Amino acid sequence: MATLMENDVFMAYTTYATIVIVKMLLMAPMTGYYRMTRGAFSNEEDVALKPVEERKKLLRTHPDVERVRRCHQNDLENIVPFVMVGLLYALTGPELSTALLHFRVFAGSRIFHTISYVGALPQPSRGLSWIAGLLVTFSMAYRVLRIALLL
Amino acid sequence: MATLMENDVFMAYTTYATIVIVKMLLMAPMTGYYRMTRGAFSNEEDVALKPVEERKKLLRTHPDVERVRRCHQNDLENIVPFVMVGLLYALTGPELSTALLHFRVFAGSRIFHTISYVGALPQPSRGLSWIAGLLVTFSMAYRVLRIALLL
Amino acid sequence: MATLMENDVFMAYTTYATIVIVKMLLMAPMTGYYRMTRGAFSNEEDVALKPVEERKKLLRTHPDVERVRRCHQNDLENIVPFVMVGLLYALTGPELSTALLHFRVFAGSRIFHTISYVGALPQPSRGLSWIAGLLVTFSMAYRVLRIALLL
Repeated sequence: MATLMENDVFMAYTTYATIVIVKMLLMAPMTGYYRMTRGAFSNEEDVALKPVEERKKLLRTHPDVERVRRCHQNDLENIVPFVMVGLLYALTGPELSTALLHFRVFAGSRIFHTISYVGALPQPSRGLSWIAGLLVTFSMAYRVLRIALLL
Repeated sequence: MATLMENDVFMAYTTYATIVIVKMLLMAPMTGYYRMTRGAFSNEEDVALKPVEERKKLLRTHPDVERVRRCHQNDLENIVPFVMVGLLYALTGPELSTALLHFRVFAGSRIFHTISYVGALPQPSRGLSWIAGLLVTFSMAYRVLRIALLL
Repeated sequence: MATLMENDVFMAYTTYATIVIVKMLLMAPMTGYYRMTRGAFSNEEDVALKPVEERKKLLRTHPDVERVRRCHQNDLENIVPFVMVGLLYALTGPELSTALLHFRVFAGSRIFHTISYVGALPQPSRGLSWIAGLLVTFSMAYRVLRIALLL
């Protein structure tokens, strides 16, 4: 038990995995913020305290809310695989510098992805940051399969 | 290998992580149940056995189905991060009583979240149960970063 | 550390978990391919290089794109729980042959699920492949709870 947390690569994994998960979790309050400022809700019970005539108008979608939700969904599709493959990757005992390179590029690419998605920056900023993160995960998956293949 | 499963905190993590994952998995059959009873499907091949004139009518969304799907999505957004951060948290060797408190509050909050979402209970029941779960995950992430920070 | 990667069951888990995660990650480029060939985008910045009069027409949904996205979502809902429960399952020290049976059935069922979803094969091909994967995860969760229950 203690051995894992005394291992440098595993500690680096732990740090970056936690950072990107916390980043992903923060998308939910951000969605809530946009829902309230834009007045766009999904559930009747969420607008129950508003005047009756306003309620129906508030049960709608809003482009800004949908944008944040797509960004959140993209996080789920990319950060979750990174954290799961990264755990196995850290257990294969890579060099600390190589591992750190993977983790840092991934964390940076996902933070930049969020900025370019929510800020609607011109393409290919969002596309490139998404691909950078994807390539990191593929690179880790390649090493995992090369070292621990048992079919 | 054996050492992990002989560790009390890790066993507690294992138990609660499995419980909340199974809870999340059960949302899919629940969606299926609502799809069938409400007659609201997404795929043409799912209604291929119905009479031709009915098929088009069945390819629609229904508020009850969408509600269960939003609940399922919220589980993905919250339970998956809990399970991933919880693993790292369990490896940092917290007190068993503190760890159990985290795990129990999270599991309870998510079960209550599902009840209040699917049952459309008045707010803030759903909101508070969501926040309780989020705070547990943030608290675990804080300890992980405090103990195993290597940037 | 080294001990985990010298354990046969854990190596088998590592192999199959990585395979199904990579399969899930490939759904994103597939969505991108369908978006481009069908001309159906979600974000204004994604169509900024097109002639002005075309842009609005391209910001739409297309049945083929939505189908791939539903398949991707189903992967998130099923593959992520498999990878998380599978890790705990591997740590309970099951027989290698039993573990391999679980992992192989799951990986096969998810690959067949993708084929039958994207190819819109007649039901119950998609339904059965989904249930097969679900039963594997439940079977692993049952063993985990039987061996490591600490409430």
